[in-house]
Amino acid sequence: MHKTRLAGYHSTMAELIQPKVLKGFRDFLPENEISRALLVEKLTSTFRTFGFVPIDTPALEYSEILLRKSDGETEKQVFRFEDNGGRDVALRFDLTVPFARFVAEHREELYFPFKRYHIAKVWRGEKPQAGRYREFVQCDFDIVGSDSAAVDFEILDMMRASLAAIGVHGVTIRLSHRGIFNRFLAKLSLSDKSEEVLRLVDKLSKVGEDEVRAQLEELAGAEKAAEILSYIKGAGDTSEDFLATLDHLERLAGGCAEDTTRMRDIYTFMKDTGISGSYVFDPSITRGLDYYTGVVYETFLNDLPSIGSVCSGGRYDNLAGLYMKDRVPGVGASIGLDRLIAGLETLGVQSGQKSFTDVCVFCQSAEAMTVYQKTASALRTLGIACEVFPDPKKMPQQYAWAEKKSIKWGITVDTDAETGKTMLTLKNLETRETVQNITVEQIAAKIRP
Amino acid sequence: MHKTRLAGYHSTMAELIQPKVLKGFRDFLPENEISRALLVEKLTSTFRTFGFVPIDTPALEYSEILLRKSDGETEKQVFRFEDNGGRDVALRFDLTVPFARFVAEHREELYFPFKRYHIAKVWRGEKPQAGRYREFVQCDFDIVGSDSAAVDFEILDMMRASLAAIGVHGVTIRLSHRGIFNRFLAKLSLSDKSEEVLRLVDKLSKVGEDEVRAQLEELAGAEKAAEILSYIKGAGDTSEDFLATLDHLERLAGGCAEDTTRMRDIYTFMKDTGISGSYVFDPSITRGLDYYTGVVYETFLNDLPSIGSVCSGGRYDNLAGLYMKDRVPGVGASIGLDRLIAGLETLGVQSGQKSFTDVCVFCQSAEAMTVYQKTASALRTLGIACEVFPDPKKMPQQYAWAEKKSIKWGITVDTDAETGKTMLTLKNLETRETVQNITVEQIAAKIRP
Repeated sequence: MHKTRLAGYHSTMAELIQPKVLKGFRDFLPENEISRALLVEKLTSTFRTFGFVPIDTPALEYSEILLRKSDGETEKQVFRFEDNGGRDVALRFDLTVPFARFVAEHREELYFPFKRYHIAKVWRGEKPQAGRYREFVQCDFDIVGSDSAAVDFEILDMMRASLAAIGVHGVTIRLSHRGIFNRFLAKLSLSDKSEEVLRLVDKLSKVGEDEVRAQLEELAGAEKAAEILSYIKGAGDTSEDFLATLDHLERLAGGCAEDTTRMRDIYTFMKDTGISGSYVFDPSITRGLDYYTGVVYETFLNDLPSIGSVCSGGRYDNLAGLYMKDRVPGVGASIGLDRLIAGLETLGVQSGQKSFTDVCVFCQSAEAMTVYQKTASALRTLGIACEVFPDPKKMPQQYAWAEKKSIKWGITVDTDAETGKTMLTLKNLETRETVQNITVEQIAAKIRP
Repeated sequence: MHKTRLAGYHSTMAELIQPKVLKGFRDFLPENEISRALLVEKLTSTFRTFGFVPIDTPALEYSEILLRKSDGETEKQVFRFEDNGGRDVALRFDLTVPFARFVAEHREELYFPFKRYHIAKVWRGEKPQAGRYREFVQCDFDIVGSDSAAVDFEILDMMRASLAAIGVHGVTIRLSHRGIFNRFLAKLSLSDKSEEVLRLVDKLSKVGEDEVRAQLEELAGAEKAAEILSYIKGAGDTSEDFLATLDHLERLAGGCAEDTTRMRDIYTFMKDTGISGSYVFDPSITRGLDYYTGVVYETFLNDLPSIGSVCSGGRYDNLAGLYMKDRVPGVGASIGLDRLIAGLETLGVQSGQKSFTDVCVFCQSAEAMTVYQKTASALRTLGIACEVFPDPKKMPQQYAWAEKKSIKWGITVDTDAETGKTMLTLKNLETRETVQNITVEQIAAKIRP
């Protein structure tokens, strides 16, 4: 450990330092950190059952590697500096670029298809606003090395399954396909204006249809604007309209092709595995500002659509083209953990758990501490999370402490003055009911039946 | 997601970037990351059963706050820079200073005693050597806000229990008490030379007793040198010699006092809870370069003492004296994860697990993909981790992929041409034994009985 002099400095002798964190950064107190940890554990568990494996990469990398193909806006937001060796380094701002470098660097040791999840901090020097931080956790999962519809489906299935695992069953995953849209725009001879069209379509929910129509007419004329809006609307906004919408887009795009066949295949998987009710074909999902080339998707909480997508992603053509010659196709998604946590809080799906302690042993006298420790030890051996209050403070203080840790049960230990026998009393700290003369085994059975 | 242009750049058009990480930083491939994750999960589980709660703090903080009382050496090794707003910031180099700031900043919201664990990355710009990295995970746990012997004991008990939880049962935790040593040096009128004495004592295992005696004699004379060595040797190096060593030091230090009583109390807890066999009173443990004021300890693997301490710590007088007036005493420890992992590898306690997949479904034809997905889905519902190989590659390639993921079981699906009935065959990929015509439920029962 370091030579950090924590002891021995009397605060009266030196000026106290005001403790504070940087703008856009935050501490996580136990309740919030537990909440985040439990969420991540459930997500991780689901990822693992689908065959995904974890990796890790450095927080700090060569700026040249991280920023090669970023635009000026990304560069402005990166935490970048010169290290002690004069190297131009930066904190990673996402987990995708590091993954691309990772795959290129380790391609001899990897296998394909390679399915990885990575849940870790990233840093962006954005203007801090409500709900927007400079340090936050990203939760990415990707399958690389396969063009198959099976992996497109698997990612979609896993998105649904992971949210279900954390207690969110009412989700709608809205998907679309960039290839079909590109083909449609080509048919309208609007390929060179695709960025503007995508940008306008992205604005639909914000500015409304009339405004978007007006701007599309300005860009492409009234007839094409009408076709674009007809495309975007599809044939209905429910899961049952999937194939009707697909047929509609196929007609507008000029007929059947690999891209529409892909969507049919994905739909067949979803229908036959009984999960199609969670998915809607929504042509307004374009994720136009990203590098996707195939299926794209966003995920909404049915009870709280206003917070936006909690999990977005899609298929891309080539992950690591900057670093290696071989093409590595892939499909992936990213869960917005902060937004998801905020949504769960609003929906009241958070437990408010403040510790993992099942039962505490109160301290009525310092002399009996050995008995308390033996009791706690015996309970832990039986799989019960148990801790001892360490000092003989007044009971109200100990109850207050137990409440702050959301501990449900408490034990008081008494020793019979004559026989010297130890007697345990178990108290339900919520109802205040007590059970006298109870054994450690009985306590364990009561707490974790 | 970002406007990082990953797709569309044909590698032939632009110069390929050589993928590499910074010196002293590293990627974690799945096998190593899984190993690390499983370790951390087991440690975390133990911490929680003892009542510890997790927190989190920012990776980046104000340099002034992190470095206020550090010495020049620490400052040289810190990743420090000016951010986009001109602030002097640095990456945290340990988890203790952030914890001190955290406790001061949130003292109104916290409760005492407060027991926290924090497992997270820290960064130090040290000269990279074998086994020494610039980015590594620290695993800290502390109890603050109590002077009680009960919490000293609890930390010691938990150190033993966490190592047992990860499969390491042969550990020796060597403890001592800085207060007794300080009192002893005061009795020898050597208080003003305590740093030098501690530095010499620390060298014992490296340079040997004769060399240390010679240097001690130079510093304090032959008589005091002899007494110091007698102190350091104690009365025996086994767990049964605990009280004899304590008596010996008590005599040399001038009699009974709070510090020796503290060690007696701790020993009583250890003896009465049946765990004293894992602990040795070792007066050569001083952790002299740190800020401890009470009990101090180091942990050694009985089968591999040469790697040094895998978990060290002690009691300190005042955690947050730089930031707040109120005294916050505490006791804590830090597990050296990298060293521990290296030790476990040498001892062969690592599983070599490369994924969490129990069983895979092989792909013999793209047309049957729906059946494969339904099978996998059904197995996951039964709690089995299952994935489908997504493309109809040659079987040797699929077997090789399964082996790289250390998947133990494989399923092939055949459809009866006449009846259209699906038949599953389960194959043990290690023994090559197969079971024909097996149901999903039977597969689940076989894999996870």
